[in-house]
Amino acid sequence: MLKPLGDRIVIELVETEEKTASGIVLPDSAKEKPQEGKVVAVGTGRVLESGERVALEVSVDDRIIFSKYAGTEVKYEGKEYLILRENDILAILG
Amino acid sequence: MLKPLGDRIVIELVETEEKTASGIVLPDSAKEKPQEGKVVAVGTGRVLESGERVALEVSVDDRIIFSKYAGTEVKYEGKEYLILRENDILAILG
Amino acid sequence: MLKPLGDRIVIELVETEEKTASGIVLPDSAKEKPQEGKVVAVGTGRVLESGERVALEVSVDDRIIFSKYAGTEVKYEGKEYLILRENDILAILG
Amino acid sequence: MLKPLGDRIVIELVETEEKTASGIVLPDSAKEKPQEGKVVAVGTGRVLESGERVALEVSVDDRIIFSKYAGTEVKYEGKEYLILRENDILAILG
Amino acid sequence: MLKPLGDRIVIELVETEEKTASGIVLPDSAKEKPQEGKVVAVGTGRVLESGERVALEVSVDDRIIFSKYAGTEVKYEGKEYLILRENDILAILG
Amino acid sequence: MLKPLGDRIVIELVETEEKTASGIVLPDSAKEKPQEGKVVAVGTGRVLESGERVALEVSVDDRIIFSKYAGTEVKYEGKEYLILRENDILAILG
Amino acid sequence: MLKPLGDRIVIELVETEEKTASGIVLPDSAKEKPQEGKVVAVGTGRVLESGERVALEVSVDDRIIFSKYAGTEVKYEGKEYLILRENDILAILG
Repeated sequence: MLKPLGDRIVIELVETEEKTASGIVLPDSAKEKPQEGKVVAVGTGRVLESGERVALEVSVDDRIIFSKYAGTEVKYEGKEYLILRENDILAILG
Repeated sequence: MLKPLGDRIVIELVETEEKTASGIVLPDSAKEKPQEGKVVAVGTGRVLESGERVALEVSVDDRIIFSKYAGTEVKYEGKEYLILRENDILAILG
Repeated sequence: MLKPLGDRIVIELVETEEKTASGIVLPDSAKEKPQEGKVVAVGTGRVLESGERVALEVSVDDRIIFSKYAGTEVKYEGKEYLILRENDILAILG
Repeated sequence: MLKPLGDRIVIELVETEEKTASGIVLPDSAKEKPQEGKVVAVGTGRVLESGERVALEVSVDDRIIFSKYAGTEVKYEGKEYLILRENDILAILG
Repeated sequence: MLKPLGDRIVIELVETEEKTASGIVLPDSAKEKPQEGKVVAVGTGRVLESGERVALEVSVDDRIIFSKYAGTEVKYEGKEYLILRENDILAILG
Repeated sequence: MLKPLGDRIVIELVETEEKTASGIVLPDSAKEKPQEGKVVAVGTGRVLESGERVALEVSVDDRIIFSKYAGTEVKYEGKEYLILRENDILAILG
Repeated sequence: MLKPLGDRIVIELVETEEKTASGIVLPDSAKEKPQEGKVVAVGTGRVLESGERVALEVSVDDRIIFSKYAGTEVKYEGKEYLILRENDILAILG
């Protein structure tokens, strides 16, 4: 198991073909394009200067979209993951 | 549905023709030019170092203007959206 | 109506001819030069990390001078405005 | 009247000839050189993240020295001023 | 013994061959690639502006993955170590 | 008199010949080299975000060493001074 | 005596030959390499925004390793020292 630290999140990439289940299709323009993923593990949250720890807004199994160039790739027990910070996540697909 | 995180906001672009309903027309000068949009979803707000979460100032259905190069384009269930941070929003058209 | 967010302010430019009502004339030197404007709308103020919101120091109808290259131009219902942050304002002409 | 905002200060330049009343003479070396001025108006002070406003350390009529390239020139009702931030002021001449 | 300061951590590198015990294999793409290590000593934690010290999330003997170019190499009593900051650690392998 | 603001300090340079009273001799290497000075005036201290003002650690007449390229030169009533921030001071010679 | 300010520390360099008492040997790779020193004086600690002063984690006579390019060289009463900030110290050799 991968236990991400702080505000980090482990996701599996969801291949965004022309037509995915959730229906995300990336437009073809010059702007930065997001990617889709599924959350497999979440950290304990960011610690504020007040000492409070802020729980993450995403949960395991959430489908999310995130900034394309964000994160670090990891292969663990034969599967590929991406480790992001919560700030790289744009929205949850609900 | 797209649920934006933190201080993020999902908008639909409003095409700013010569004469739109709200009457925004962009001047033709060298300064940065804003664009018009309609809010379709808002995040839960930014968390301060004190632990307090600040609700966003914009609400669903608000017409807003925002910094032109801000945000990330997303196509979801066949429609195009833009995901911004509240800080990219200049004003609400009221 | 344009409702600026946070610490933003909407102004109308005041053309600074050789002799304006308030008497601002820009000196001709190499230093950054300010411009004059009239406040038409103010935001709700900046939120501090303590959660407190700080009301703006300027009010509607104040004549102000601001940093020349600051702000974003907007044309709304046929009139031109500039949206600034309070920090771009140097002084109120009183 | 010019009412500076926040931690800003309006000064009149004091020409630093070879021998001024206060006796400031700039040395001729490669280091950054300060200039002399007289305070004509002070802002309400900087707001801390705690919400407290810190009154400025300088008062109207103080003679000050400040960083040479700091500030913005303004001509108002025929006279020239410079608008600085308190942080640009090095010392009060007392 | 090496006693790291603050939020620093001392690790031993774990050679990530084709097949390691924990099964980490680095993918061959253009993205930044993490490395695997074993924690041998942890600091007392980061001090917040509130004065509180935040204990580290990792413990001695944890297997971790970390950002590839992070840290400082040290050879101590004949063995090689790497000193990281907790922020360089992506996840604990559990 | 020069009254420095905030965390600023006015010093007189102490010429560091081969053998000074306090015995500071600068080594001839490629690293940044400090200089020696005597404190002639200190500011009221830095204001923290909590509103508290932190008194300076140096006092008038302290001999100090400071970062070589720090500060602003001032000639006042015929004497040369340097205005530093407390952060530029490395140590007090005691 | 050298009394370092704030979070500064005065150390004597420990020459890291092939075999030192503490056994530090620097590996020959492309990564940043640390150096060894002995603490001879410590500052009063860093002041937090809350007003609290955080005592340093190192004490006089501690053997430490620190980032190679950190610090300022000083020769005082015929001996050479290095003045560091606590943040430049990687670990205490215990």
